[in-house]
Amino acid sequence: MAGLALNAQGQDTRKVDSGSDPGQENKPLLDENPSSNFPPPTDRGDIGPIWYSFDLAHKRMEDGGWTHEVNSKVLPTSLDITGVNMRLTAGSFRELHWHTADEWAIMLYGSARVTVLNPDGTIFIDDVNKDDLWLFPAGYPHSIQGLGPDGAEFLLVFNDGNFFEDGTFLLSETIAHTPPDILAENFRLDKDVIARIVRKESLYIFPADLPLSLAQDKAAVGGQRAASPFQYTFKLSEMAPTRKTAGGEVRIVDSGNFPVSKSIAAGLVTLRPGALRELHWHPNASEWQFWIKGKGRMTVISNEKRADCS
Amino acid sequence: MAGLALNAQGQDTRKVDSGSDPGQENKPLLDENPSSNFPPPTDRGDIGPIWYSFDLAHKRMEDGGWTHEVNSKVLPTSLDITGVNMRLTAGSFRELHWHTADEWAIMLYGSARVTVLNPDGTIFIDDVNKDDLWLFPAGYPHSIQGLGPDGAEFLLVFNDGNFFEDGTFLLSETIAHTPPDILAENFRLDKDVIARIVRKESLYIFPADLPLSLAQDKAAVGGQRAASPFQYTFKLSEMAPTRKTAGGEVRIVDSGNFPVSKSIAAGLVTLRPGALRELHWHPNASEWQFWIKGKGRMTVISNEKRADCS
Amino acid sequence: MAGLALNAQGQDTRKVDSGSDPGQENKPLLDENPSSNFPPPTDRGDIGPIWYSFDLAHKRMEDGGWTHEVNSKVLPTSLDITGVNMRLTAGSFRELHWHTADEWAIMLYGSARVTVLNPDGTIFIDDVNKDDLWLFPAGYPHSIQGLGPDGAEFLLVFNDGNFFEDGTFLLSETIAHTPPDILAENFRLDKDVIARIVRKESLYIFPADLPLSLAQDKAAVGGQRAASPFQYTFKLSEMAPTRKTAGGEVRIVDSGNFPVSKSIAAGLVTLRPGALRELHWHPNASEWQFWIKGKGRMTVISNEKRADCS
Amino acid sequence: MAGLALNAQGQDTRKVDSGSDPGQENKPLLDENPSSNFPPPTDRGDIGPIWYSFDLAHKRMEDGGWTHEVNSKVLPTSLDITGVNMRLTAGSFRELHWHTADEWAIMLYGSARVTVLNPDGTIFIDDVNKDDLWLFPAGYPHSIQGLGPDGAEFLLVFNDGNFFEDGTFLLSETIAHTPPDILAENFRLDKDVIARIVRKESLYIFPADLPLSLAQDKAAVGGQRAASPFQYTFKLSEMAPTRKTAGGEVRIVDSGNFPVSKSIAAGLVTLRPGALRELHWHPNASEWQFWIKGKGRMTVISNEKRADCS
Amino acid sequence: MAGLALNAQGQDTRKVDSGSDPGQENKPLLDENPSSNFPPPTDRGDIGPIWYSFDLAHKRMEDGGWTHEVNSKVLPTSLDITGVNMRLTAGSFRELHWHTADEWAIMLYGSARVTVLNPDGTIFIDDVNKDDLWLFPAGYPHSIQGLGPDGAEFLLVFNDGNFFEDGTFLLSETIAHTPPDILAENFRLDKDVIARIVRKESLYIFPADLPLSLAQDKAAVGGQRAASPFQYTFKLSEMAPTRKTAGGEVRIVDSGNFPVSKSIAAGLVTLRPGALRELHWHPNASEWQFWIKGKGRMTVISNEKRADCS
Amino acid sequence: MAGLALNAQGQDTRKVDSGSDPGQENKPLLDENPSSNFPPPTDRGDIGPIWYSFDLAHKRMEDGGWTHEVNSKVLPTSLDITGVNMRLTAGSFRELHWHTADEWAIMLYGSARVTVLNPDGTIFIDDVNKDDLWLFPAGYPHSIQGLGPDGAEFLLVFNDGNFFEDGTFLLSETIAHTPPDILAENFRLDKDVIARIVRKESLYIFPADLPLSLAQDKAAVGGQRAASPFQYTFKLSEMAPTRKTAGGEVRIVDSGNFPVSKSIAAGLVTLRPGALRELHWHPNASEWQFWIKGKGRMTVISNEKRADCS
Repeated sequence: MAGLALNAQGQDTRKVDSGSDPGQENKPLLDENPSSNFPPPTDRGDIGPIWYSFDLAHKRMEDGGWTHEVNSKVLPTSLDITGVNMRLTAGSFRELHWHTADEWAIMLYGSARVTVLNPDGTIFIDDVNKDDLWLFPAGYPHSIQGLGPDGAEFLLVFNDGNFFEDGTFLLSETIAHTPPDILAENFRLDKDVIARIVRKESLYIFPADLPLSLAQDKAAVGGQRAASPFQYTFKLSEMAPTRKTAGGEVRIVDSGNFPVSKSIAAGLVTLRPGALRELHWHPNASEWQFWIKGKGRMTVISNEKRADCS
Repeated sequence: MAGLALNAQGQDTRKVDSGSDPGQENKPLLDENPSSNFPPPTDRGDIGPIWYSFDLAHKRMEDGGWTHEVNSKVLPTSLDITGVNMRLTAGSFRELHWHTADEWAIMLYGSARVTVLNPDGTIFIDDVNKDDLWLFPAGYPHSIQGLGPDGAEFLLVFNDGNFFEDGTFLLSETIAHTPPDILAENFRLDKDVIARIVRKESLYIFPADLPLSLAQDKAAVGGQRAASPFQYTFKLSEMAPTRKTAGGEVRIVDSGNFPVSKSIAAGLVTLRPGALRELHWHPNASEWQFWIKGKGRMTVISNEKRADCS
Repeated sequence: MAGLALNAQGQDTRKVDSGSDPGQENKPLLDENPSSNFPPPTDRGDIGPIWYSFDLAHKRMEDGGWTHEVNSKVLPTSLDITGVNMRLTAGSFRELHWHTADEWAIMLYGSARVTVLNPDGTIFIDDVNKDDLWLFPAGYPHSIQGLGPDGAEFLLVFNDGNFFEDGTFLLSETIAHTPPDILAENFRLDKDVIARIVRKESLYIFPADLPLSLAQDKAAVGGQRAASPFQYTFKLSEMAPTRKTAGGEVRIVDSGNFPVSKSIAAGLVTLRPGALRELHWHPNASEWQFWIKGKGRMTVISNEKRADCS
Repeated sequence: MAGLALNAQGQDTRKVDSGSDPGQENKPLLDENPSSNFPPPTDRGDIGPIWYSFDLAHKRMEDGGWTHEVNSKVLPTSLDITGVNMRLTAGSFRELHWHTADEWAIMLYGSARVTVLNPDGTIFIDDVNKDDLWLFPAGYPHSIQGLGPDGAEFLLVFNDGNFFEDGTFLLSETIAHTPPDILAENFRLDKDVIARIVRKESLYIFPADLPLSLAQDKAAVGGQRAASPFQYTFKLSEMAPTRKTAGGEVRIVDSGNFPVSKSIAAGLVTLRPGALRELHWHPNASEWQFWIKGKGRMTVISNEKRADCS
Repeated sequence: MAGLALNAQGQDTRKVDSGSDPGQENKPLLDENPSSNFPPPTDRGDIGPIWYSFDLAHKRMEDGGWTHEVNSKVLPTSLDITGVNMRLTAGSFRELHWHTADEWAIMLYGSARVTVLNPDGTIFIDDVNKDDLWLFPAGYPHSIQGLGPDGAEFLLVFNDGNFFEDGTFLLSETIAHTPPDILAENFRLDKDVIARIVRKESLYIFPADLPLSLAQDKAAVGGQRAASPFQYTFKLSEMAPTRKTAGGEVRIVDSGNFPVSKSIAAGLVTLRPGALRELHWHPNASEWQFWIKGKGRMTVISNEKRADCS
Repeated sequence: MAGLALNAQGQDTRKVDSGSDPGQENKPLLDENPSSNFPPPTDRGDIGPIWYSFDLAHKRMEDGGWTHEVNSKVLPTSLDITGVNMRLTAGSFRELHWHTADEWAIMLYGSARVTVLNPDGTIFIDDVNKDDLWLFPAGYPHSIQGLGPDGAEFLLVFNDGNFFEDGTFLLSETIAHTPPDILAENFRLDKDVIARIVRKESLYIFPADLPLSLAQDKAAVGGQRAASPFQYTFKLSEMAPTRKTAGGEVRIVDSGNFPVSKSIAAGLVTLRPGALRELHWHPNASEWQFWIKGKGRMTVISNEKRADCS
């Protein structure tokens, strides 16, 4: 394909002529992806889909909130990372559960109380507000509860592109599918106590009353004696920019300032209108982006196909 | 997940409460997929993406037209079928080429002249108008030329989910990458004649003058003596409905009325507003749909995961 | 490895000496597989597992019966065939359902009433007794009901090694997960009629009263007018042996005497004690065996590894 | 599926009615797997085979002992670990060999002498008795010899689910398939010396006389001067329990107390009748069990399929 | 890359300058593949290896002949076809055997006697001379014996790119690895007769005396009564050319003139020096070539990568 | 297969008789691979292709040099390593580029100037002469320029068997396919400056004038202030042998003496005629060999198939 060609009126002849599209078209979709529909003259080849929207993904709707996810099933290039976008109404719980990937999160709206159990029996409890983070290690049981006045919405990021929310271990399921006599023996409880604990349906996300204060909750599980030696949350909202220029600013959180986050490093990037995040690449890791606000244009160069064809 | 729950005001509490989405959202995308964003209460599980739009797909833009495609790379469930949407301006050619899948087509706009070479040396030439079809067998060289006044746009369907337009055999490439002495020997032509034929760039799609009349073109290639014994086009635009009800009508084209179409059967379905294509399934073939006009709601049941969870 | 070696007492020294197994052993399992535990001297190499028992497979237990299966997941060499062993108590139903493989069956105990819907709207109903067969084509809806006095147990065989019972389309699920307004439109019924039909749980296997007589059931669905033009059951119990020798007899059922059985041929083989089914092989098909009664020794030669090592 | 239902006599109606199994059954196999044949009411879904018995696996019988193995070929979920159960009669050798996985072992019966060659030319020799362990690093040549009075039987564990005993490098094969002139040059020996060393058959397992005393053997290979700086055996039989409760005891051996065992950690668990190993999971490693003695019931929860179906 | 560029002396500057190769090179290999080492200016991209030579393939050497093969293991693009080149000295046998692919052959040198057993018990015996063919269906036992004065060499072609000679079923192995009591029962022979038949080593290729005349051999196995109703050999040496031009000639053998050859069609092509087999392609089958004599240049165009880059 | 057999004249009967090859053969190819064509009697089985020659591999020819490669596409066993052989004429450049594997190199002929950009903005520049090495980390941009009098030829080794030269990121392509307004913004340059920088064709390998002296080049990019803290080249030509025997010598370069070479260790082995590199194996890494000069015989033992067959 030749480069830019102007007609006598100075118009891009590609737009006037070859670019015409007289048949059916889906205007809203075209408008989401203008540079792919009518690529700039510099464009060559097709590197395949490189973005997907939670807003195209199916939602699992529960009483108390919802969840939807973007993993390698919908975005095949996302081999290393899965994103889950979740909503909990005030008081509602994401049930105590665990999984085989690390879980990193950023609060998008509202606030939530998170609880993590350590293998040594200690317990971490904290409240997370807008723009703050958490990191839960693989295999550690944890729960999340939406706080007042209107619960929370957050983004979860897992270091496994094949992760899926329906594949976590739920406490309710683990209990429900263990024979009652085993449970009685395991917890040294009478069978009728067990019978009252066991639920026929899994909980996953479920509504509940708002919790007591954080201090009261901490005290209720044992206070300082049971307190976790590790800090699983991070106040990104209170962090000064790591770097600031005329075009914007960035806040970087990695194992240097958030020690438990060993497998995931994050940068919160703010770009002013017209500003450019300089051309760059990462030698050792995949980059996964979530656009919190605004609109931008991304240029990505792939080396999978030869691009020198003209 | 529980079923429908109404609050005191008779509102679906899921919409008022759990369905709230206070964080970022992409309204245009949500509006394309409303039943996935806010699924009906009968919904269970997630069968993954089952549609994709040409309007999300990258276009290859050429002087003379463009093309984009939906194959298993962007719609992984489409294992058996690839669709290509192509535009040719008036006079412009999709160059003589061939490939290893059968090609079925429906004209969406305008008209085009198609040419097919049979292995026995005969030639099929015909003009195809809006709503008409063609079928070109795998391996048979063929070309397509946009006619006046404004060329053509059409949908191509290939019986291979891994087909991709950039993987066809182009005449210009085949010639360009064959040593000139081989070409001279093959065509019994002088080398300088060959030198004038060979192009350094492939053609693929390229502009040209409008052709002579169909009759003149047929005569030019040998008239009745060289005429193809097979009919590769079908006048769907002149066909009466196969079946007609109060809700709509269907025209079915398969090997019964279009004998060369051995591997692909098609139904042109027209549904009136509110009408329903009855619940059904096909024991022996995959169904691939292209929506020419209008809007509808589809309900699909998959058996890949257990759906009896509640 | 050397061949047979006898000690001074004329004992196989391998048994006395090398064959000793002083550590832990599972006697019942060893007794199921004696020639693999202590192979004959002619044995060379290891062709991997070639049998599996329904009695090792997990049972899905339902009110009204149970099911368990042997597919390529438990027997990886069974690429072409899956077997399902199912029990229905008197009156209980395997719900109306369909799937993408053909279903062949033999009744092992008791009797059952089978119903098949043809695409032309006709219905096949018949009762199947011990040792009789059926064949249901892929995609055709069918149900099975245990009859008196004690229901039925049967073996199902599917021509797909990746088949699994939980992956069939159930009528109850299809209905439950279709929006009620679609159902009302599809069946031209009032929404409250629909509301009474829809169940929140799938049926799969469920208890019911014993049916009316076969003649009454046939009459109820339309009698001769609605009768299927195809015969989907076969009275193997009344068939004379295809071949009979001093060592036993065989009854062969294939598309020759059971025309709908286009994809599956079966032989019911009876061997007397000590008799041998002659060494043989099949050029064009895999052989899958189910042992109804008795005990035997099988010798299988594979060509996947070199066997000429000594 | 509903939960437990009792009839008027207080019997589980599932057992009396739906659980009946009037057709053929293999009683010894059923008795090995009772909770899978008649699952407890808490059971949901089917997580596939999670155990396999050496007693179902084919034995390779040699003059001097035998071997059989359980790897991912017979137990597809065992992706990380292969187990081999081996017998050597008194004096018999498992020939000097090496492989690309680490080898961990526990002596089940009798005793054996093990020899390992280090890359630095030193040699480790030791005798291993019942309940004791060894660890041989990948690539290190080693041999095993059964001692008096009746040889040994042991369990080998490799950190690779695709390991197979027939895929090890045998010294005899390496020698046999190297041209004699290369061998002569390599070992600086006359060709007729080489000719006496080379065997036309591999050894693998072969009978031999009982060895001299351990001290004599050590002296024969160079005494203290050639002694290995690393200890490859561990006296588990002399170790005190790591933890002891009313229900049993456990001995844990990992890189803490057995430094060469970098890739494999083991726990020898003893449970009293009726006692329970508490519900638990491991965030970072697969668990592979070998039951030395006794009988128990295991409950396993998998997250691969949704388990909240009822 | 630019096209041809001549310097002042009229030399291709690519050869003089860029084409220089001052480091190590393997001249004999370069000379086998000159157009790949220094491609013509028309060349673009790299379609990967498309040829392999039996003369690079490892030979299995036996007393009585040898064999080597080219399958997908050495030529990964050969997915559909495997070639085996085999030599039998006078009197020597390729042992009676069978396999799961069809076997097509052309005699390259000398002559051989072939024997095929039909499932109906009849026997086909024939002598095959230079340039003649055979076709043995999958699963049919057959043997080949080299005749005087100097045996035979032939090319075998199998319709499976994963075929390998070591994976056929040999009669000797089948017998050797079947327990003697089973053999005795199967053949109704005394055990000591069996003991004399069974060999501890497989035969595969083995020397033998020259056979009797063809007529005598036919009579010995039952004469006309046992004669095969099918003809498995074809006298290509006596066939007139299917087509003849100034440049050469072709003989085509397919199911039209050689009815048993249902899965393989062949063309024996003879090209005079300088002549060209016209540019062509096959819509429905892969083409596999074996060069019997002479030297030529092949030009192959692939569609797997874009070739229009310049 | 039996071992060596001599006839009355003391000749190896295999050579005289079974080894005869009267049909077609390709003498030059046979001579490259004599031990595979006529294997020594110790040989068993076929371990598949274990070598490939750059001289069989297709060359990409450019104005200024050429390149060809051996990766897993042509040598399927080379899963961990790819080799590229490249030529640059005097002054010619391998354009600034980067890739996702580490690059190790040895200069085979002439000399070249290499330039590497560090993430911290410093620059490494050095000249590399015959027998010297370099190591460029994955992701670091680097270029190579042939020096006088006749440029360079070198071997590149990448720690990824699926690497391919056409899949690197070229600076010219990255620039060419980035919209000019983005480039202008990124580099803070006027658009017409950008227009002069952007090339419509990629460079890859291209001719240029000889550079200034190394000192001048270093000064031009910022002198000591911009000097790289890491040394990416190694003077193997000046290194004393690590070990020296009567049969030859070896120079070992690994992270011990060349700290940046963390992922690749190399040994330059010199063997005198008749000398033998002792039989050995590597527990933890694959070995890839490039033969710079001379001829030798390699013996390789694989454990993938049983080798004890005779």
